[in-house]
Amino acid sequence: MEETFVPFRGIKNDLQGRLMCYKQDWTGGFRAGFRILAPTTYIFFASAIPVISFGEQLERDTDGVLTAVQTLASTALCGIIHSIIGGQPLLILGVAEPTVIMYTFMYNFAKDRPDLGSKLFLAWTGWVCVWTAVLLFLLAILGACSIINRFTRLAGELFGLLIAMLFMQEAIKGLVNEFRIPERENPKSIEFQPSWRFANGMFALVLSFGLLLTALRSRKARSWRYGSGWLRGFIADYGVPLMVLVWTAVSYLPAASIPNGIPRRLFSPNPWSPGAYENWTDMLNVPVLYIIGAFIPATMIAVLYYFDHSVASQLAQQKEFNLRKPPSFHYDLLLLGFMVILCGLLGIPPANGVIPQSPMHTKSLATLKHQLLRNRLVATARTAMGKNASLGQVYGSMQEAYQKMQTPLIYQEPSARGLKELKSLTIQTASSMGNIDAPVDESMFDVEKEIDDLLPVEVKEQRLSNLLQAIMVGGCVAAMPFLKKIPTSVLWGYFAFMAMESLPGNQFWERILLLFTAPSRRYKVLEEYHATFVETVPFKIIAMFTIFQTVHLLLCFGLTWVPIAGVLFPLLIMLLVPVRQYILPKFFKAVHLQDLDAAEFEEAPALTFDLATEGEMGRTTSFAEDGEILDGMVTRSRGEIRRMCSLKVTSCTATPSKEFNQSPQQSDKVYSPRVSDLRGDQSPRFGGRGPFSPRIGEPRPSSLGKNA
Amino acid sequence: MEETFVPFRGIKNDLQGRLMCYKQDWTGGFRAGFRILAPTTYIFFASAIPVISFGEQLERDTDGVLTAVQTLASTALCGIIHSIIGGQPLLILGVAEPTVIMYTFMYNFAKDRPDLGSKLFLAWTGWVCVWTAVLLFLLAILGACSIINRFTRLAGELFGLLIAMLFMQEAIKGLVNEFRIPERENPKSIEFQPSWRFANGMFALVLSFGLLLTALRSRKARSWRYGSGWLRGFIADYGVPLMVLVWTAVSYLPAASIPNGIPRRLFSPNPWSPGAYENWTDMLNVPVLYIIGAFIPATMIAVLYYFDHSVASQLAQQKEFNLRKPPSFHYDLLLLGFMVILCGLLGIPPANGVIPQSPMHTKSLATLKHQLLRNRLVATARTAMGKNASLGQVYGSMQEAYQKMQTPLIYQEPSARGLKELKSLTIQTASSMGNIDAPVDESMFDVEKEIDDLLPVEVKEQRLSNLLQAIMVGGCVAAMPFLKKIPTSVLWGYFAFMAMESLPGNQFWERILLLFTAPSRRYKVLEEYHATFVETVPFKIIAMFTIFQTVHLLLCFGLTWVPIAGVLFPLLIMLLVPVRQYILPKFFKAVHLQDLDAAEFEEAPALTFDLATEGEMGRTTSFAEDGEILDGMVTRSRGEIRRMCSLKVTSCTATPSKEFNQSPQQSDKVYSPRVSDLRGDQSPRFGGRGPFSPRIGEPRPSSLGKNA
Repeated sequence: MEETFVPFRGIKNDLQGRLMCYKQDWTGGFRAGFRILAPTTYIFFASAIPVISFGEQLERDTDGVLTAVQTLASTALCGIIHSIIGGQPLLILGVAEPTVIMYTFMYNFAKDRPDLGSKLFLAWTGWVCVWTAVLLFLLAILGACSIINRFTRLAGELFGLLIAMLFMQEAIKGLVNEFRIPERENPKSIEFQPSWRFANGMFALVLSFGLLLTALRSRKARSWRYGSGWLRGFIADYGVPLMVLVWTAVSYLPAASIPNGIPRRLFSPNPWSPGAYENWTDMLNVPVLYIIGAFIPATMIAVLYYFDHSVASQLAQQKEFNLRKPPSFHYDLLLLGFMVILCGLLGIPPANGVIPQSPMHTKSLATLKHQLLRNRLVATARTAMGKNASLGQVYGSMQEAYQKMQTPLIYQEPSARGLKELKSLTIQTASSMGNIDAPVDESMFDVEKEIDDLLPVEVKEQRLSNLLQAIMVGGCVAAMPFLKKIPTSVLWGYFAFMAMESLPGNQFWERILLLFTAPSRRYKVLEEYHATFVETVPFKIIAMFTIFQTVHLLLCFGLTWVPIAGVLFPLLIMLLVPVRQYILPKFFKAVHLQDLDAAEFEEAPALTFDLATEGEMGRTTSFAEDGEILDGMVTRSRGEIRRMCSLKVTSCTATPSKEFNQSPQQSDKVYSPRVSDLRGDQSPRFGGRGPFSPRIGEPRPSSLGKNA
Repeated sequence: MEETFVPFRGIKNDLQGRLMCYKQDWTGGFRAGFRILAPTTYIFFASAIPVISFGEQLERDTDGVLTAVQTLASTALCGIIHSIIGGQPLLILGVAEPTVIMYTFMYNFAKDRPDLGSKLFLAWTGWVCVWTAVLLFLLAILGACSIINRFTRLAGELFGLLIAMLFMQEAIKGLVNEFRIPERENPKSIEFQPSWRFANGMFALVLSFGLLLTALRSRKARSWRYGSGWLRGFIADYGVPLMVLVWTAVSYLPAASIPNGIPRRLFSPNPWSPGAYENWTDMLNVPVLYIIGAFIPATMIAVLYYFDHSVASQLAQQKEFNLRKPPSFHYDLLLLGFMVILCGLLGIPPANGVIPQSPMHTKSLATLKHQLLRNRLVATARTAMGKNASLGQVYGSMQEAYQKMQTPLIYQEPSARGLKELKSLTIQTASSMGNIDAPVDESMFDVEKEIDDLLPVEVKEQRLSNLLQAIMVGGCVAAMPFLKKIPTSVLWGYFAFMAMESLPGNQFWERILLLFTAPSRRYKVLEEYHATFVETVPFKIIAMFTIFQTVHLLLCFGLTWVPIAGVLFPLLIMLLVPVRQYILPKFFKAVHLQDLDAAEFEEAPALTFDLATEGEMGRTTSFAEDGEILDGMVTRSRGEIRRMCSLKVTSCTATPSKEFNQSPQQSDKVYSPRVSDLRGDQSPRFGGRGPFSPRIGEPRPSSLGKNA
């Protein structure tokens, strides 16, 4: 991303880029048909459940001033606005834990002031929101988001892991509380007798572990051996919501023999008071001193939102996803400012971009896109085979179908990508199978498998799933009577599930695991995650780097426990940016740092080196291991085959956009075509290298760069 | 096995065979050192826990006349006797569920007779035991065990699955009962209030599922990525007992907040009454009519024991294990008769050979043997590599070490097996790696992996583990105060664990799974279990055969629910023997039947066919997939490599014993050397073909047989 601090330039660029694909954002969504419901439902649950639970937390902490109704309303409202006029529609908005913590601090401050009190609390937060919005406007206009390409993997993945820890902490806390008497309840009632409390706790353990284990299993359904493909696909798509239903049903099984209130279920929040719409009139009653004083919490919230919103967006647009539409950091921050004011006026806590829901959204859309492409190509191949076509013809028709499926973006040469790869693979495969002209049938050639191996990772980038999930979140307010039936313990299980779902693909997490891996089995990490650094960086250096990062993570985690100051934890994470740029290079060799945490600002000076790495990236990301990303859609043995395929393909792919043949050895390093004019180097990256690395034994691009 | 019905001949053969290796049975055990404790502990738990639980069941059903003390005493006594003077020391003895059912029926009969009553119940069962023993003597002397080679996979695996179902049923029943008030307890006490009963049930769910899931995980520890090799090995060896300890400890965690009696723990049985030693004097007081009438239950028990004891022994000696010492069916049945009399005189229920403990014992000894061989060879290879040896030299020294480790049996040419395979592999590998004379080091050559791939399945056949576990079971009587601390719910989890541990390797079970496998993924069954039939038999035929077998299984299972008649279920299983021999061939083609359920009596007439199949067997079994047998010791990707190795090896192995080159195509079908003079064709088999099949695309031996 260009580091432009010229006022408004970033916003203008963002708007230009996104407007060009705005129509396609909608048509693409509708064209996906009913299948769009799979990612929609998945994200709806991931979005609604934490928001409801944070709402319950707020209700406890603000003596009922704010409830789940308000958090749901804010999430729905901001979600709908963002999905329609927002920049990056992959970004999911919601009321997040940091917001809850901030509001709790503010409530504790306000309730003890005689001239403010809990009556004027919402009015005062309205002023905080106004100041926050002003600061966000300034940041957006002045191009503060330009520097987020300095947020390398180091900071982003640490933040991701921290959020996972917070979710897991919430799950554990919730479970422990199931054994205790909740606050604001009558401790005399039958369900809080010691025996029933213990029974409730044990039941909660059963329900939450039941949900966690079955939900984790169901996400892997596509690689199950049993059941028809349709059933497996359905379970993989809708398994998690289904499991919430199943375990809620299980919680009613022993209803006859246990008192009402066991297991504990969601608390029914007070309905939105009609006076809430007039919050802005109250705002005029806030004493001037407090209006000015509101600037202090506003700065903290602004920093928090700037970081949180941008990193969530960045994680939803990771390089591995091969996105084709441009990012929109500046404009989205500006829009966030407007939404913060709106929420402030309405007296509801504002929503911002959330982790891990945003990357989960992109992942589920990658699965969707894969299915759409796959089904079309399988049908095409079968039709061709029905006509006794040769392998060459089958691939020919598949190419044609693939081409038709490519999103016709205005600013892009149509179907520049994927096509060539299919073509060259055709020739390769056909010649390896002997005769290119002989008719093929399915016994010779497993169509579905072949196509799974062929397809690159692509994401169905559109606005519909985001809009629908936001509307569904809004529907939750009306559906409260039904939602109340979900046991809280199922929520805790779901929190743990979300924490665990966010771990795979996080290289920091993989390095932590590596520390505990037996030396003789470290090669497996390389096999599974394609993590080059295992090969190129000495283990001691990896360990040092990881331990440094872990210590920092624990510091951040510890900071969230500190009252008031806790809300500054994003600052501690942002501290990693200068540390990475100025301090780490003194302790680690540049080559190692590059492999562990590639940063664009380090690549810039050495052109050849940079290009080799870029070529490497393009090559590997174009055939990313969707076995990881697509939740085990492809089993390991197939993954094995794919890796071989993608090697074959790339080694003979010649793309029209750019090609760098620095040495004969490097002829297979090809710059994969991207929407480089709009996105290209401007797109945010965690590092100069994706998590997908060359095979063992291949010459490393970095050493090549040095040789050249 | 030769079908000899000449009186005493079978017993004589058995004794001759086993006496020859009797000394080695002990020296081999002691030479294994402390490692023998791993299989010993594993089997001790598998043996003791069900026996204790059956004892509790007996105590309930016989109003406390028989308790866990008696079942433990019987298991220990018979186990010690059998391990010292028994024929096949792999066979594990114990008081089994059918015995418990029989004793319950007899108690219900006796207690209502005024001239018998519960006072003379044990004396009367003493007479039943005497008659049972007489019948067993007759069966042993007349060579009834000769026909057990007619018990094909069909009957044996059905029995195995039935036992697994009974164990699972016991686990589920036990868990359900945790929610109820147990019999013979004061329903007024605090822990049986509805709230505490529910709490107890939920706690039981947590404990039993906790044990089940962690125990299943721990058995796979060897293939974990984390932890040192030592730790992984320790967890794999002792994980199950360790988990029983861990979950027992967990059950004490909430002790402060719950009443005594939650969770429920093992009931403390009455100590063995001193009068029990004089049971035989009571026997003289039993009215003559009842002494004669005792013959009726005795016939049922004799049939049961004949079947149960032989099948347990047969399953412990399956072909895949490559046993080298001879079986001993006739003599073991004779000895069982003596032990039944002894138990009858002592007034304790007799023990007999048990499933799944016996095959579990063999499997754990195969793991032990693998470790011993592996450690020696790894050490040898490392030493050689330290001396800058070439690959050829490394393999040479490994061959030498392997040769030294071979059990020097009197009746066998020393180290006929394995050696050649190592040698030919040496040449193969060395030439494929370029230079046979260059020094090698570990970076080029993963010693441990290589050796894992090389080693065939062998079993540490000895008597020590059996003796030690029997003594430990005896020690349980003294350790009752400690055993009482184990929660019953942990037992139910353990029962479920035993049921699930007995499933892998059962081809009937795998075929049931195949019925539910998506057509496109059936090839995976072939990959995982090397089940040829998937390829050679049309799916419809497999389905029909499996459904027939499943219906039969459900009939047997249903029969166990019928009072009194239920004890006849072994007869229903034995009915499968004539059904298999005379009726099934009318519905299924011989070739298909051969692949699904190979029987020796069908192979006999067609010599060439038979030999080809034998060769096939020898070939495949010699390099059996210990990835399956050794509980995932070897990961899948390694399994892949091994299969290739074993192919390479066998295709150039020429063994001295026999060789059949019927056609050039068949030159790689080699008769693997066995202790054929003593064991060879006499050994009981489930089928003419092991579960290990040739690779896809290889010519099938059966079709070859027909071509020849």
